[in-house]
Amino acid sequence: MITVHGYAASDNCWKVAQILRSTGRDFAWVEVDSNAGATRTPEFLALNPNAKVPIVVLDDGTVITESAAILCHFAEGTPWLPPAGLARTRVLEWLFFEQYSHEPYVAVARNIIAYQKQKAANADRLAQCWARGAAALDVMETRLAQHDWLTDAGPTIADLALMGYTQVAEDGEFAMSRWPAIQAWLARLRALPGIVPLQGISA
Amino acid sequence: MITVHGYAASDNCWKVAQILRSTGRDFAWVEVDSNAGATRTPEFLALNPNAKVPIVVLDDGTVITESAAILCHFAEGTPWLPPAGLARTRVLEWLFFEQYSHEPYVAVARNIIAYQKQKAANADRLAQCWARGAAALDVMETRLAQHDWLTDAGPTIADLALMGYTQVAEDGEFAMSRWPAIQAWLARLRALPGIVPLQGISA
Repeated sequence: MITVHGYAASDNCWKVAQILRSTGRDFAWVEVDSNAGATRTPEFLALNPNAKVPIVVLDDGTVITESAAILCHFAEGTPWLPPAGLARTRVLEWLFFEQYSHEPYVAVARNIIAYQKQKAANADRLAQCWARGAAALDVMETRLAQHDWLTDAGPTIADLALMGYTQVAEDGEFAMSRWPAIQAWLARLRALPGIVPLQGISA
Repeated sequence: MITVHGYAASDNCWKVAQILRSTGRDFAWVEVDSNAGATRTPEFLALNPNAKVPIVVLDDGTVITESAAILCHFAEGTPWLPPAGLARTRVLEWLFFEQYSHEPYVAVARNIIAYQKQKAANADRLAQCWARGAAALDVMETRLAQHDWLTDAGPTIADLALMGYTQVAEDGEFAMSRWPAIQAWLARLRALPGIVPLQGISA
């Protein structure tokens, strides 16, 4: 049995659960509250020296870290990750975009406001999150205004990865009515068989 | 001919030049000074709406963005990227680690100090860069104290990606004597055929 060590409120962890569901794999879940320091125990650091969830532990004890690498690992050989070539490269572009240009702003705004509840103490940080997060959402909007999915290969792990924190961006006070093509894309994703969306706490 | 649009001082751009050299491809270079706003012109935004270098333009006009996706694209089918399976997943783990946990701190400290020359005005930001950058270097040191390369597949794009900003981390005032296994690994990388290291400006 595959075991996911994750924090249920984290969309980085949701992504991992979703690709396992979407590729027909059973898994166990071990809850790890990263906001409460549970990724910094000696036991957890032995699994991931980088002190982050999610991680996946396979039957033989092999540990896989980094949510986007986990997506690639389990999507390999399925329609969620096209074969090598430009189609796969397009998926990878979005996966790196998500981790570098989107998650550090869209996810962090949500964590500060909805989980740490430290909005007043983080005004400068939030201003940066809102500006850069909006810029990332604008890049997605540009693509999705013309296409149903982020790449031409149909729904892939690029879409799952960006669905992650975009589906709960309202929790970070992003006014999603500004991005109608993203809203339509989220509706398409939620309508796919086997997708179990994460509910925002502001929903 | 492949054309790289990049900023010569950027190790994200260096990585792209290096994988092209290491896989025997000729390329032209178009210099784009991202610190001077050259990624925000209408012409550049038409190539990459995310306003970032490096990008690669292929003969047929196809544009590829995201340095780590570009590494994967050109390494495919070579020893720099192992075939699908756990060996490839290990490479992807390090590529995402680099973009999320290493580059935003190690590269940003260097940019603030050595290029923007705004050290005094960014004390809080730099303190965060030094703490989180050191944590990332610690993760690398743990691996490299026991192994020659970041993955068991020999030198791969995981090593090239992390070589990027690690080779010039001194520019960001990281005291590299603290990480002897990283220094030995950098020496091994520099000794590989075809590697053209980037010189730090503090070297």
